[in-house]
Amino acid sequence: MTSRVEVLARLREALGDRVDTTEDSLEAARADKSGHAASGRPIAVVRARSVEDVQATLRIASATATPVVTRGAGTGLAGGANAGDGEIVLSTRAMDRILEVRPDDLLAVVEPGIINADLNHALADHGLWWAPDPASRAISTVGGNIATGAGGLLCAKYGVVRDAVLGVDLVLADGRLLHLGHRSVKGVTGLDLTSLVIGSEGTLGVIVGATLALRRLIPGEVRTLTATFPDVRAAAAASAAVTASGVQPAIMELMDAASLAAAHSLLKLPRPRSGAAQLTVQTDGPAATGEADAIAELLRAAGGIVAIAHDAAEGEQLLTIRRSMHPAMETLGTTLIEDVAVPRSALPAMFDEIARIEREYGITIPTVAHAGDGNLHPNFVFEGKDVPPQIWDAAGDLFRAALRLGGTLTGEHGIGVLKRRWLADELGDDQWQLQRDIAKVFDPAGILNPGKVFAP
Amino acid sequence: MTSRVEVLARLREALGDRVDTTEDSLEAARADKSGHAASGRPIAVVRARSVEDVQATLRIASATATPVVTRGAGTGLAGGANAGDGEIVLSTRAMDRILEVRPDDLLAVVEPGIINADLNHALADHGLWWAPDPASRAISTVGGNIATGAGGLLCAKYGVVRDAVLGVDLVLADGRLLHLGHRSVKGVTGLDLTSLVIGSEGTLGVIVGATLALRRLIPGEVRTLTATFPDVRAAAAASAAVTASGVQPAIMELMDAASLAAAHSLLKLPRPRSGAAQLTVQTDGPAATGEADAIAELLRAAGGIVAIAHDAAEGEQLLTIRRSMHPAMETLGTTLIEDVAVPRSALPAMFDEIARIEREYGITIPTVAHAGDGNLHPNFVFEGKDVPPQIWDAAGDLFRAALRLGGTLTGEHGIGVLKRRWLADELGDDQWQLQRDIAKVFDPAGILNPGKVFAP
Repeated sequence: MTSRVEVLARLREALGDRVDTTEDSLEAARADKSGHAASGRPIAVVRARSVEDVQATLRIASATATPVVTRGAGTGLAGGANAGDGEIVLSTRAMDRILEVRPDDLLAVVEPGIINADLNHALADHGLWWAPDPASRAISTVGGNIATGAGGLLCAKYGVVRDAVLGVDLVLADGRLLHLGHRSVKGVTGLDLTSLVIGSEGTLGVIVGATLALRRLIPGEVRTLTATFPDVRAAAAASAAVTASGVQPAIMELMDAASLAAAHSLLKLPRPRSGAAQLTVQTDGPAATGEADAIAELLRAAGGIVAIAHDAAEGEQLLTIRRSMHPAMETLGTTLIEDVAVPRSALPAMFDEIARIEREYGITIPTVAHAGDGNLHPNFVFEGKDVPPQIWDAAGDLFRAALRLGGTLTGEHGIGVLKRRWLADELGDDQWQLQRDIAKVFDPAGILNPGKVFAP
Repeated sequence: MTSRVEVLARLREALGDRVDTTEDSLEAARADKSGHAASGRPIAVVRARSVEDVQATLRIASATATPVVTRGAGTGLAGGANAGDGEIVLSTRAMDRILEVRPDDLLAVVEPGIINADLNHALADHGLWWAPDPASRAISTVGGNIATGAGGLLCAKYGVVRDAVLGVDLVLADGRLLHLGHRSVKGVTGLDLTSLVIGSEGTLGVIVGATLALRRLIPGEVRTLTATFPDVRAAAAASAAVTASGVQPAIMELMDAASLAAAHSLLKLPRPRSGAAQLTVQTDGPAATGEADAIAELLRAAGGIVAIAHDAAEGEQLLTIRRSMHPAMETLGTTLIEDVAVPRSALPAMFDEIARIEREYGITIPTVAHAGDGNLHPNFVFEGKDVPPQIWDAAGDLFRAALRLGGTLTGEHGIGVLKRRWLADELGDDQWQLQRDIAKVFDPAGILNPGKVFAP
């Protein structure tokens, strides 16, 4: 291992003013939006502006056996891009150009650092959009969305990241550049390494470019409605009934009683009835109105009190309640946002499990869910900076419950550092080892995001 | 290496009547629908009826260092499941049960040997379907569809195999069983090995089960039309105009002059005008009629003579011409069916390249294309059993042309043995080696389908 001073000297020599060692930058790179921070301080933040900058950084890292943490906007929720003692932070945030938009081929070629919302703003001029829509879309990068396999609200209708990426340019640990995937709709040449890189959380290489599959903007107005139920189980059962009916909403969000009450309190809205849970549903496309009416009918039959927005502005007001979830949680204390996903029919049972865990651990777990795709975000709220052991115990209980119901411990946030200790529970030991061995093929010396995903 | 006799004895001891050594079975396992056959004769065909049978076979193969060729229905077009001298054929064709259908979760769990059309027949009772629709769907297995990453006619609208598989159960070379993927819509736990297995052509393990993502049957009638153009370039340009217009047909097939003439001759239809090429378009869903009318308008404006079917029966008649392509080719000689794919806007340029190759090599290359997704099937027709060297030269020229246009050398048939010598041209040497090293993680001794995909 080369000394910190020498690594820094080599970086400065090769990359000049791309190398940032200001106190604020080093400190900011230690944490992401999970609130969790790595221990110790990274050596430097390299702010790459080109593929060559990334390659130069990785060659130095390889030559000096220095760990590299790739970072976009730092909006992750699992600590996957947190950099600690002796690590190089490789930021691709400044590589933010759109290199090509092809409306005729429904594709765009972009650099990784572009913000999701900025990309979609530019694509709108062409009548196009890129479907992945994490809640962080206003602040997260496309490269980060790909590296985490980010999800969002629209996944049930419009797919997840792996459905929206045709190819990825990847720099390996030793600095070599690979072009993975293709520009055509179909392509089965050898192994699908593009999909392997999606969700690999910086362990296989550094994403320096992506060929994205686009959609045409959906014509027509959206329709928005809410339905309030006496309790969360009734709301979950109603959402499962919507899915089973075959009508496909663009958005179907569920807020349990604690979430709804906290959001109402933050927005200074009338306090909801005790125990009340809410579904927020949006339909789009040419049949939006008919679909909204059909869903309203279903939700009323399931015991919901339905409010349909009369126009887009009223629709936005209804969605604001759901969007206020995270700020509302912040008023309650420090939050560990979890991310289990279950088959959609298991949503009511998963809420039963959450109620059980609340009882057994004597805590409240405010929970929102992307009910259309079975992805839940239970929020563990606590005092102070570090997650207390009993909260981790409760979270572990939650993960095991999701697995028992045929689910997964992360729907869209990834493993990072915060969930790595449960990874083998889901994969099994054999698959865990196989995955680790595959990562070693990309990065034999183990310098890429060490300690993330695969616990040491 | 253990002797052939001893391997056979061990198989018989462990698997009894699953071991088939009849002359017909051994002979049939040497070839697929490409017509290409492996040299020599395999040791035996093991007709597995359970996961345990597959595991037992692989344990014996591992212990005796005997190569294993996994095989479904043998309908491949790249020689990927052809078994030769000293190899064990592991057939999963008899593992053909549907284990679970969940309309509420839009998923099914199946064994690999079920025929695609049989699965869809059973799913229709639930109002569901599995979207991948290779032309071989009446005779090919779901396991084979996954192993090759098979495509079909509906891909532009309804996606490819990797969009339709949630999880795969895989037996490794050493007999261990892994459960890859998940049952939820979202899931980003570790590396996406499910996608890695899709299209891996038997090199990573044996697929013994799959969790499939289903769709609801599309309501409404389909509408079918054809448009005839003076030449293939005009037809290709018209198809690109349809794609660029934003109207999404379910099917958009293109036949060049030689294909159209051959199909007409086979069906005893009036001979088309010299040089005439044809598009066959089908729309579906609630807006089928409006979309068909809009497409007809576009195609007329592009110089096409349009015929719209008045009912489903007439629509079937129009599609019959396209479906007669392969039997029509068989009347002309032996056929090497190629499978390049290009970005959709490059279709006219790809047809120019095909015309150039026809001129330069003095041959005719009848070509059909899934014009909606840019996947072309140029047919090289020749006399005799083996592909003559000059035909391979022309095919190599074709592959390089597709790559120059931003395309790929295989859209949906895979690499197998027939295209392995061009694989590194597309991947680059670094990626080729990386892919090979990944395969070794799954199969360190290299007993799974050796010599396929990755040329020795």
